[in-house]
Amino acid sequence: MQRRKFLKTAGVTAGAVATAASIAQADEKKVHEWKMVTTWPKNFPGLGTGAEFLAKKINELTDGQVNVKVYGAGEIVPPLESFDAVSNGTAQMGHGAAYYWKGKSEAAQFFAAVPFGLNAMEMDSWIYHGGGLEIWQETYAPFNLVPAAAGNTGVQMGGWFNKEINAIEDLKGLKMRIPGLGGEVLKRLGGTPISLPGGEIFTSLQSGAIDATEWVGPYNDLAFGLHKAAKNYYYPGWHEPGTTLETFINKDALDSLPENLQKKVLDAARIANQDMFAEFNARNGHALKELVEKHDVQLKPFPDDVLKEIRKISDEVVAEIAKKDAISQKAYDSYIAFRENAIAYAEVSELAYLRARSMTN
Amino acid sequence: MQRRKFLKTAGVTAGAVATAASIAQADEKKVHEWKMVTTWPKNFPGLGTGAEFLAKKINELTDGQVNVKVYGAGEIVPPLESFDAVSNGTAQMGHGAAYYWKGKSEAAQFFAAVPFGLNAMEMDSWIYHGGGLEIWQETYAPFNLVPAAAGNTGVQMGGWFNKEINAIEDLKGLKMRIPGLGGEVLKRLGGTPISLPGGEIFTSLQSGAIDATEWVGPYNDLAFGLHKAAKNYYYPGWHEPGTTLETFINKDALDSLPENLQKKVLDAARIANQDMFAEFNARNGHALKELVEKHDVQLKPFPDDVLKEIRKISDEVVAEIAKKDAISQKAYDSYIAFRENAIAYAEVSELAYLRARSMTN
Repeated sequence: MQRRKFLKTAGVTAGAVATAASIAQADEKKVHEWKMVTTWPKNFPGLGTGAEFLAKKINELTDGQVNVKVYGAGEIVPPLESFDAVSNGTAQMGHGAAYYWKGKSEAAQFFAAVPFGLNAMEMDSWIYHGGGLEIWQETYAPFNLVPAAAGNTGVQMGGWFNKEINAIEDLKGLKMRIPGLGGEVLKRLGGTPISLPGGEIFTSLQSGAIDATEWVGPYNDLAFGLHKAAKNYYYPGWHEPGTTLETFINKDALDSLPENLQKKVLDAARIANQDMFAEFNARNGHALKELVEKHDVQLKPFPDDVLKEIRKISDEVVAEIAKKDAISQKAYDSYIAFRENAIAYAEVSELAYLRARSMTN
Repeated sequence: MQRRKFLKTAGVTAGAVATAASIAQADEKKVHEWKMVTTWPKNFPGLGTGAEFLAKKINELTDGQVNVKVYGAGEIVPPLESFDAVSNGTAQMGHGAAYYWKGKSEAAQFFAAVPFGLNAMEMDSWIYHGGGLEIWQETYAPFNLVPAAAGNTGVQMGGWFNKEINAIEDLKGLKMRIPGLGGEVLKRLGGTPISLPGGEIFTSLQSGAIDATEWVGPYNDLAFGLHKAAKNYYYPGWHEPGTTLETFINKDALDSLPENLQKKVLDAARIANQDMFAEFNARNGHALKELVEKHDVQLKPFPDDVLKEIRKISDEVVAEIAKKDAISQKAYDSYIAFRENAIAYAEVSELAYLRARSMTN
């Protein structure tokens, strides 16, 4: 059939043309059914709901062409096997935090949080406009994964302590639930870092099995009821100053999408990244008020001398990551150089402003 | 032609079907050609490029169905007539900052920046998760406009001064280019706020026609060469602690889009909002280093006593906005309540952390 003739025919048989169009579109508009495994319990406040937000946003931006179903920790694989599950294609994508994968690559830690590192807005700046994302992509490439920032808790709190911390000696012998690099720092200062899943923290603290715990921030901590187990709530969270959450996508699955859909999946992550941080901030403010006014929580700053000792050890611990391999060195160099500028700039911008606002309040 | 027969025919004439499909899609995939008027010169660093970023992102997310062409200040209408131009449909959307429209509604100022107000991340929290967006929508509704956050400069700098500010008396008689609420505060402290377009600032400062000027932050200030006209660079920018840029969309134009495209236009704004802030942060850090190390700029904090006086007057000026009308009162009440929580939370999170990081650095 010649084009001209067909068009003429089509003109008088609109219904038939629509049918043909639907067929062609059904092909073009193929729906990709994706699974998202997560390191959080399903709909866990902030983190699990953030994963759901991401899935919904991907669905919206792709007009349903990438349809993501979220699975909570343990539903398909245990939480800390999410990385492998997406790497090998059991699921198309995951939601977690990069420091969980330091066993795969030590460099991963820089893309979540390191002690005395970048805060949330600085992480975004480093990732999107400071070369961070490219190094992150390079770090995950050997695992057939494509990473993207997909949330942020903001500065976390220092934690709940059943006794006061007045000097660095008070950390000696302290049994504290604090994972990762923060835990390593505590260990070198004579404390005992304990690993505990979220569900066991409250009873362990209440029974005295541990002396202290960090968790996230006022919003999540209040929901866990940690104020009922210890009254001293220390700040700031030097160990996690702006923890970036992530999505990691199976590269073959991403590559199998048309290019416009690939971009939309990554754009959905940017929106999720921003939304979670904004939500944490808003909710943390309310929760802090409730903790102090309703539950009589004692807010206490770590003493400067204690922070100085912690910083010294933290810098050693973070510098050791760089020595593990070439990509860790590359991530470290980029991160530390960015932080140097960020610290200097914060001193005349965010830090100076927040100080002035509180000082005059 | 019966459906069955058509399908059979279609099956053997794939090319023809594709043509029919294209026709049908051309209808479904109608392209909406939109104009965006802006209050910035075309491609002005950060702000004008941010408007271009937004246009590109809308195009990407809608697969070209909303095709936005950006016009610089004065190309279609003068910059400060952008609001009216979009309101009356001359253009479908605009990019600017809400405080430019205080002549339309005093409440608008809360959605850009007010002295000693919310910083960038707090603005996002208030807008997306604190009720701010709904009040903003209500403020713009009478003008047939739909607003969205679409960028942020972060904390601005206090400005360039040709003499030192050591006491509040030093502001008396000071001729400073500082628009808006900051200018009103300066006036009440005995200074003379001057309005000058960007292009005239440098020569006015160099010639001594003005004694001081604020502009944006290190990135934009360096590009303007302001360090060649005055050496004292004061911080923090108490008058603009996290200026939100905006897009405002003609409501009829937005409503005329299919619902999925409406959402995508607004989602593009969220990405633009995040991207501009991340870019400003990264570039400001670099520019500050260059200003100090290469150009010997003297960074100076406003003295605490000066800040306290400025704060007192600022609070008066901001409170007066509330008295203008019902929507301004509503915006003020919401903003100030949110700020109260934000200040308390910042003191145990961002402020405490940034202080600890610098103190131990």
